[in-house]
Amino acid sequence: MSSKAISGIGEFGLIGRIAALAETTLSAVPELLTGIGDDCAVYQPSAELLQVATTDMLADQIHFDLLTTPLQHLGSKAISVNVSDICAMNALPRYALISLAIPASFSVAMVEELYKGMSHAAKEYGLAIAGGDTSSSRSGLVISVAMIGEVSREQLTCRSGAKPGEMICITGSLGGATAGLKLLMREKEIMLNHIENNESYSRSSMADLQEYSEAIQQQLLPLARIDIVRFFHANNIVPSSMIDISDGLSSELQHICSQSKIGALIHEGRIPIHGSAHRIADELQDDALTWALTGGEDYQLLFTIPKEQYPAIAGNNAIAVIGETTCEDEGVQLSDIYGMKIDLSSVRGFDHFGS
Amino acid sequence: MSSKAISGIGEFGLIGRIAALAETTLSAVPELLTGIGDDCAVYQPSAELLQVATTDMLADQIHFDLLTTPLQHLGSKAISVNVSDICAMNALPRYALISLAIPASFSVAMVEELYKGMSHAAKEYGLAIAGGDTSSSRSGLVISVAMIGEVSREQLTCRSGAKPGEMICITGSLGGATAGLKLLMREKEIMLNHIENNESYSRSSMADLQEYSEAIQQQLLPLARIDIVRFFHANNIVPSSMIDISDGLSSELQHICSQSKIGALIHEGRIPIHGSAHRIADELQDDALTWALTGGEDYQLLFTIPKEQYPAIAGNNAIAVIGETTCEDEGVQLSDIYGMKIDLSSVRGFDHFGS
Repeated sequence: MSSKAISGIGEFGLIGRIAALAETTLSAVPELLTGIGDDCAVYQPSAELLQVATTDMLADQIHFDLLTTPLQHLGSKAISVNVSDICAMNALPRYALISLAIPASFSVAMVEELYKGMSHAAKEYGLAIAGGDTSSSRSGLVISVAMIGEVSREQLTCRSGAKPGEMICITGSLGGATAGLKLLMREKEIMLNHIENNESYSRSSMADLQEYSEAIQQQLLPLARIDIVRFFHANNIVPSSMIDISDGLSSELQHICSQSKIGALIHEGRIPIHGSAHRIADELQDDALTWALTGGEDYQLLFTIPKEQYPAIAGNNAIAVIGETTCEDEGVQLSDIYGMKIDLSSVRGFDHFGS
Repeated sequence: MSSKAISGIGEFGLIGRIAALAETTLSAVPELLTGIGDDCAVYQPSAELLQVATTDMLADQIHFDLLTTPLQHLGSKAISVNVSDICAMNALPRYALISLAIPASFSVAMVEELYKGMSHAAKEYGLAIAGGDTSSSRSGLVISVAMIGEVSREQLTCRSGAKPGEMICITGSLGGATAGLKLLMREKEIMLNHIENNESYSRSSMADLQEYSEAIQQQLLPLARIDIVRFFHANNIVPSSMIDISDGLSSELQHICSQSKIGALIHEGRIPIHGSAHRIADELQDDALTWALTGGEDYQLLFTIPKEQYPAIAGNNAIAVIGETTCEDEGVQLSDIYGMKIDLSSVRGFDHFGS
């Protein structure tokens, strides 16, 4: 029995151990086509239809800070992060189950605020909040959402279907969510300093943040790219592989490459960086490209398509081609603006159990 | 905006507020036949099949205490409590998603122990562990399980289908889980006293607990009554209503009555009390009937059937008839061993937010 600390094997090491134990349960249910290892599990309830299923848990002080996060935004985000996983399978969300562990400090109105954000988001995405569980919590707020989506067999898109010589595409822009998070953390520090020194801190000081509102919105109120999935369906586009960007471009691209057994070459100059991320990075003496590569929570879609499908996506301004897939032995590389190639395998995203 | 404390409206008041907000999302998804309000949500993925979906969250210091709970048992219980909800719809479980918030004190081996319990239970029930989410936790361990089951339209059993003049039945026996919990709480106190006084406390002192092992097992390792659902299916029995006993007989019977718009009369002498619960209650100067009525976590099934179906269940020793349904205006009553009728509406189960 290994008594080693989880930080020693990291989040992906731990998922590997868990997947091995879960694997032993799969043979009893042949309708479960895919278990742990993609953005969603895939289940076939009937001959015509595939169902995809995912779950994401948000815990106080780990995934959010109530000091800087309005409850309605948090409720909406808890729905969006799950919808993003459903979209990454090229599927549409149908229903969600929501579990809450609620601290004693919460009033009825606070729970209702959280739920208003959830229902609002659910209506935007066209999914039903079907049930859940509520209990008290001895510590902070914990939100766990499980979500079920649907997709036809022909449209299902997994991480493993990319082939060498295809185009690597990304939706929207990256780095905005990290920029927003850094600003909120700075603001929180200022607020706590004011309180410590018995100086007044009014929320209107936050007005200074107005100019950064896009980045902050990207962090507090991310939207899943269901518009892109609808665009794919309307135009008969089926990406060869897809994943959503929750842990940074570098890490997600490596997931696609390892599961598709391919390599990749992406170009720094083509990575769309969020409008205000460069400016905020300069101000904070940080680097927007690093945020794009390793910062989490942008919830954009990273996908591959065969080159002959380019005309079908060319007219969509929300999609950028950032590189091409290669053979597995060429590795996963970033070509910087000087043409220097950097091995991305050393550039990882957020690890929940990293030391 | 109401800023009142949750304890002021209680768990069921809060669920009502949440259900009203969730309700607004339902119209977009006509395939969702039932939302919040039964043991599971009901969804129709295709013409032939119904799917039922449930979620249950277990949080450290609220639902379990790691000082008295082996991790494998806890993993198994997290699966069983969800299977129990699926069974209450007369359905069979198919797959589960598992979210864990893991405290820093946990080793890899501890997470594996937890998962071993989950996989073992999943295999016993014939369901697949399809996916999940793991993150770190700043506070205690939180386990959230979402589970999907299946049932034909003809076999689906809801809380709302009972009619006056039917038989009220229960599986197994009640009060054992509460007896086990009380013993474990006493043992924990003894253990903490030993530690406080610098006296040695060996786990072998727990050998004294051997004679109570059945009750403790009922608390730590409850089993969902999937055997009863299989018995129903094999014998073409479809209860008119059903619920699982997670919050005590009194509370669950009232759910069936209010949702079926009926009354009920149950008889004290017919309520099956767990073998060792009477003895343990005597020892702890408590009352086993109260445990059966208001103690939680027995995970037996409470159901109603028309009287003409009695022959079909008569041969099953795991099922006892404890009373009969009446008209709504007769209320929900317990007839005690002297024939005195007690109004059960004042006898409630566990409320997570009760003051």
